[in-house]
Amino acid sequence: MKVTIVGLGLIGGSMALDIRKAGIATELIGVDIHSKHIQEAQSLGLVDRVLPEDKALNIADLVILAIPVNTLGALLPSILDTIRDNAVVIDAGSTKGHICRVVSGHPRRSQFVAAHPLAGTENSGPTAAFAGLFAGKTNIICERERSSEHALAVADKLFNALGMKTTYMEPDEHDRHVAYVSHLSHVSAFLLGHTVLDIEKDEKQIFDLAGSGFASTVRLAKSSPDMWAPIFEQNMEYLSQALMEYIMHLQRFHYHLMKKDTKEIHKIMSKANDIRRILDGLAPGNKTSNNQ
Amino acid sequence: MKVTIVGLGLIGGSMALDIRKAGIATELIGVDIHSKHIQEAQSLGLVDRVLPEDKALNIADLVILAIPVNTLGALLPSILDTIRDNAVVIDAGSTKGHICRVVSGHPRRSQFVAAHPLAGTENSGPTAAFAGLFAGKTNIICERERSSEHALAVADKLFNALGMKTTYMEPDEHDRHVAYVSHLSHVSAFLLGHTVLDIEKDEKQIFDLAGSGFASTVRLAKSSPDMWAPIFEQNMEYLSQALMEYIMHLQRFHYHLMKKDTKEIHKIMSKANDIRRILDGLAPGNKTSNNQ
Repeated sequence: MKVTIVGLGLIGGSMALDIRKAGIATELIGVDIHSKHIQEAQSLGLVDRVLPEDKALNIADLVILAIPVNTLGALLPSILDTIRDNAVVIDAGSTKGHICRVVSGHPRRSQFVAAHPLAGTENSGPTAAFAGLFAGKTNIICERERSSEHALAVADKLFNALGMKTTYMEPDEHDRHVAYVSHLSHVSAFLLGHTVLDIEKDEKQIFDLAGSGFASTVRLAKSSPDMWAPIFEQNMEYLSQALMEYIMHLQRFHYHLMKKDTKEIHKIMSKANDIRRILDGLAPGNKTSNNQ
Repeated sequence: MKVTIVGLGLIGGSMALDIRKAGIATELIGVDIHSKHIQEAQSLGLVDRVLPEDKALNIADLVILAIPVNTLGALLPSILDTIRDNAVVIDAGSTKGHICRVVSGHPRRSQFVAAHPLAGTENSGPTAAFAGLFAGKTNIICERERSSEHALAVADKLFNALGMKTTYMEPDEHDRHVAYVSHLSHVSAFLLGHTVLDIEKDEKQIFDLAGSGFASTVRLAKSSPDMWAPIFEQNMEYLSQALMEYIMHLQRFHYHLMKKDTKEIHKIMSKANDIRRILDGLAPGNKTSNNQ
């Protein structure tokens, strides 16, 4: 099948590398509105050729949309209008409620698979792309029943090529979960970076003192605002809940800190330690792993 | 020289490995109050032998204290009482104001070097120790002028063996800087972990969805409460300021989010992006690095 990837950044570019490796495309066509991205993608050999969007959509059997969620929401209906009768469109947007709503009544809704492959780094653009980015990670498909059997089979082929396991959720459920597990992490890192930059005017000081954990905690603050601002806007409601919850926990911690209630502080941290067991996939009760 | 390390956890154990590698000790003696730590340190060969504290202090030329800061503050005066006339004591505590105050009037203050080697992982105990933990990182020495020339020369030997560059600060300055660049990161991670655990009752969900950045942002939430609760208590004043600043930034972000002021959200994130330039040690203006 001919595969067109719209958006040749970290996500689209990494998908291109995996698709080529898996040999599931007879031709890989790229689309990007940034001429710099096009040049980089071509010099990296991410796709076979780059075409203008309408031409690339007209010849594709599979169209992958790896673009910011605001553009995605705006373009998806007309993209569905433009594709061929049997073509399939799969998106990779980090929000799903808004995306599903804008095509809910579209006559070609069944040709679309609403997906969110949960992978990424803090880097962006074609030069950030690498093979294996998605391997072993989770892909979420929403409103599965609104996609045709053919579209779901094509999606299966794609996400198998990426090495992902797919799980199914309703758009609202998706948006609520990612607000806590992904979007809140980004907000927490962005604002941690902001706070430290605000106070530590001497950048050399930050650089020298960043050894003990700061670099890892703040890593996501390097992420692209062009990508994340629209995600936060589209997931405002759930992110707002997550943020209030987080601020409440920080304030409670602050209260115990001011009271020098070290016992309560210790208790809060011990509870948080549970995250090790979960992230390391350990059995309950085994909290003593020292592997990094 | 004979080196006694009190506390054979991540910090003490990793120092033991580097000291042995550098060949600066004629004998490496270990002290730990946990029998499990002693057994692990012995089976890993971290030290030559383990002795009771008073005996180990009596024969050492250099005593390294790698223990939680509450125990450190409580024991430091009597440790200085116990050591030999020419022996040097160096601590590795993450707070410096309290530690320096408790020995400020001690007749053997000049035999003590108040240090903070800025390195660590979220893991603890002898099994977490590894050679090279400190390499290329920053060590901070406080109240340099209160340590004797001999003591500073021994400290130089130690921190050179660890591969660290040393910088000098007053205790208050140290505590203020680490409150922002290190301690706040830990609080932010602990409470992020707490918030997500509070909401996501289904642990499998967290595990599956943790792909996109959460694991890195929350990593420090795996850290030892026994180590961190006393640090937070001793640095309460500066940490409290940092925490209020952080909460204020989060609330301002929340306000703009609720107003759907995506332009302002974008601006805040773009400012936070500066952290990439600083952490990557790039020249001002070059924000386009895509290296991880």
